[in-house]
Amino acid sequence: PGLTHLDAAGRARMVDVGEKPVTRRVAVASGVVSMKPETLELITGGRIAKGDVLATARIAGIMAAKKTGELIPLCHPLGLDSVTVDLGPTGPGTLTITATVSVTGKTGVEMEALTAVSVAALTVYDMCKAADKDMVIGDVRLEAKSGGRSGDYRR
Amino acid sequence: PGLTHLDAAGRARMVDVGEKPVTRRVAVASGVVSMKPETLELITGGRIAKGDVLATARIAGIMAAKKTGELIPLCHPLGLDSVTVDLGPTGPGTLTITATVSVTGKTGVEMEALTAVSVAALTVYDMCKAADKDMVIGDVRLEAKSGGRSGDYRR
Amino acid sequence: PGLTHLDAAGRARMVDVGEKPVTRRVAVASGVVSMKPETLELITGGRIAKGDVLATARIAGIMAAKKTGELIPLCHPLGLDSVTVDLGPTGPGTLTITATVSVTGKTGVEMEALTAVSVAALTVYDMCKAADKDMVIGDVRLEAKSGGRSGDYRR
Amino acid sequence: PGLTHLDAAGRARMVDVGEKPVTRRVAVASGVVSMKPETLELITGGRIAKGDVLATARIAGIMAAKKTGELIPLCHPLGLDSVTVDLGPTGPGTLTITATVSVTGKTGVEMEALTAVSVAALTVYDMCKAADKDMVIGDVRLEAKSGGRSGDYRR
Amino acid sequence: PGLTHLDAAGRARMVDVGEKPVTRRVAVASGVVSMKPETLELITGGRIAKGDVLATARIAGIMAAKKTGELIPLCHPLGLDSVTVDLGPTGPGTLTITATVSVTGKTGVEMEALTAVSVAALTVYDMCKAADKDMVIGDVRLEAKSGGRSGDYRR
Amino acid sequence: PGLTHLDAAGRARMVDVGEKPVTRRVAVASGVVSMKPETLELITGGRIAKGDVLATARIAGIMAAKKTGELIPLCHPLGLDSVTVDLGPTGPGTLTITATVSVTGKTGVEMEALTAVSVAALTVYDMCKAADKDMVIGDVRLEAKSGGRSGDYRR
Repeated sequence: PGLTHLDAAGRARMVDVGEKPVTRRVAVASGVVSMKPETLELITGGRIAKGDVLATARIAGIMAAKKTGELIPLCHPLGLDSVTVDLGPTGPGTLTITATVSVTGKTGVEMEALTAVSVAALTVYDMCKAADKDMVIGDVRLEAKSGGRSGDYRR
Repeated sequence: PGLTHLDAAGRARMVDVGEKPVTRRVAVASGVVSMKPETLELITGGRIAKGDVLATARIAGIMAAKKTGELIPLCHPLGLDSVTVDLGPTGPGTLTITATVSVTGKTGVEMEALTAVSVAALTVYDMCKAADKDMVIGDVRLEAKSGGRSGDYRR
Repeated sequence: PGLTHLDAAGRARMVDVGEKPVTRRVAVASGVVSMKPETLELITGGRIAKGDVLATARIAGIMAAKKTGELIPLCHPLGLDSVTVDLGPTGPGTLTITATVSVTGKTGVEMEALTAVSVAALTVYDMCKAADKDMVIGDVRLEAKSGGRSGDYRR
Repeated sequence: PGLTHLDAAGRARMVDVGEKPVTRRVAVASGVVSMKPETLELITGGRIAKGDVLATARIAGIMAAKKTGELIPLCHPLGLDSVTVDLGPTGPGTLTITATVSVTGKTGVEMEALTAVSVAALTVYDMCKAADKDMVIGDVRLEAKSGGRSGDYRR
Repeated sequence: PGLTHLDAAGRARMVDVGEKPVTRRVAVASGVVSMKPETLELITGGRIAKGDVLATARIAGIMAAKKTGELIPLCHPLGLDSVTVDLGPTGPGTLTITATVSVTGKTGVEMEALTAVSVAALTVYDMCKAADKDMVIGDVRLEAKSGGRSGDYRR
Repeated sequence: PGLTHLDAAGRARMVDVGEKPVTRRVAVASGVVSMKPETLELITGGRIAKGDVLATARIAGIMAAKKTGELIPLCHPLGLDSVTVDLGPTGPGTLTITATVSVTGKTGVEMEALTAVSVAALTVYDMCKAADKDMVIGDVRLEAKSGGRSGDYRR
């Protein structure tokens, strides 16, 4: 298959979804922020600060999902049914972020899920960068997607 | 060092930069989109379509740099002096993105550079996902930073 | 009833409205700006300036209703059927603002109506603050709501 | 004093601040959400849900302060030095919100502080409205302001 | 016919579209940027720079179409089915821009098409203004519209 | 002179203004909406509706000037000192719009003035299109500009 976002002359366009059926669609994406183990402990360990980096990143991810159509030039603007963003340690110095987005509409929401993960990860970076500038955001990818004409996808 | 974006009670706040000097600051960030080699060829190879995925992603990254303060909850809103985003193949199935951002101001622009890279990468994903859903965005990181009180940084 | 915007572990999420029926929904909200009587006369009394503070606040309120999903983290982004904002004196030094919003959708529009009232009130404050810094915005509340599963509400 | 945001013919305009000096300016605003005591207990009392309504409203208020120039038609767009938003119970069924904003610039930041308070209050309303639709947002007002040509203000 | 965006008292309002049927609607708008012939050659002629002004303006126009409800006070916020923007020389020093927008909804998309043309034209101006400040944007108009209750329109 | 917004390889970039001096800069732009004379009378003639189309378009233009950096991909985000937008009939069926924008900064504000004119014109179109779909927006151009390194400009 070619690149549907380019017309026959290679020019960018927003694909016409006018004929696509309205269905319930769900997408799940994930990503990882790798950091020094002691940075991750600063985030998760202390009693007082508990949760606020994660709470802030979760909110940032949810709000970014709603901005996807503004950020990604050829994405369709969409009303969303739900967005959830989960963050938690999955190893020493490894914070994993998962976003699940659903819509009842004509296009999938994989970009919304990927955008939520990316912006949540950037927020973690921002809040911890005074302690650790070597953090790396990686493994941002689509985990699963259902409800579209092209069939379900599972990584 | 602790997390400057949390106050003594662990609550999120926007750090006060009122006393920081205005200096010229530059940040460079990079990231990678890993894809099937044939997907990368679709982007770079054809004569007709040449450039439009990359041109679109470049514009999306530049525009996203300007939106950083809107996306990242505790980032300061900033006027920027310049933004450049470069994208190019660095191996079979490997597209590397580099963003350079500068400002004359009181805070660094590493978040702007990282945001530009992330949104450019998401745009590439969006434009190629009909051909390849297995793409992964990774290695998003700060390469270098200069001009701030905490000294220069080079990865 | 508990707080639907928190999951079982107390984390913020955007509630899933995928299963809710699409119905016509209307919400009415109101609020008050209290000011010195002579400030209110500056707004309403003069022949020349007549209407422009109120016209500006009305536009600001309507535009803010459309931005609700961007401002309130867990609000669903919505297409709206209509927004009206009315402002008028209801006593010496008392300016009352009423907003009515309707949608054909899966979630109510009380937040849109409350946001329209709040931003219209802030706009009045902004335009009159050189004359009167003691103004107070108050009594911002939902007056009525209809069309949702939880039944109609009237204050 | 008249209304500086209207010209001699009563038309709205953005006041020219080109000649005003750049100074450090601070503004403090506050407001109250009045609710059933048991709603406030849902917010503050439970161990599990603890903090997330307040954390979400705090983030929403900080982000809204940065959007003030977009929401209020005649406000100048501003880079901000700092924003803090505090929320806490001050009586049975009374949640008080205080926002402090600072800038080094040519115009004051009272609108930014008032906007932060208003949007934080709206966020509390949104997250608790399934439990209590009778909440009222009130007493939104400027507490103090310093650094401008017109002298310091304290309520 | 009168002005539907004003109520009986002449106040601005967003027209209620709640009772209008959901139909497929398409609008086409066009406009022209007039410039020195040698400026147009800078845009279209060189091998190296080929396309990037046009590619950037195309993306800007598409993204602006999605922002129409934010820019035009009484426009309804809309999900769009498709947006295409074409730019090309139609005479010496004449660059013509055409935008086609479609939606399945209750209101037409002529404002989205006109906004796309206007912002694409402004982007061309911005990118070429160092070479030619005398450019003029003109003839921005609706070419055709179909699918609404008021019948099809063709200029 | 070439196109400063393209690098040597023809790729779009945001020009670096880091070395440019901070000066007071002013730009004036204008444009015209051509319509049936009776449409213009609907806008200006009636006692009741008087002013609201013009008041709404004026506000839309001012708010759009502040969004210029968001709309035009390679524009620098700017704090503005002032924005004024004037609208008035200048002939039968001719409505002329003039915008004046000033800043103390490193880059000119011609794009802000042109954007204010364009969005004010689009708002007039939107509010009158039920009465007249044949309106044309034209003659959008820079009238004057001062304060930059390249010298003053007057059309």
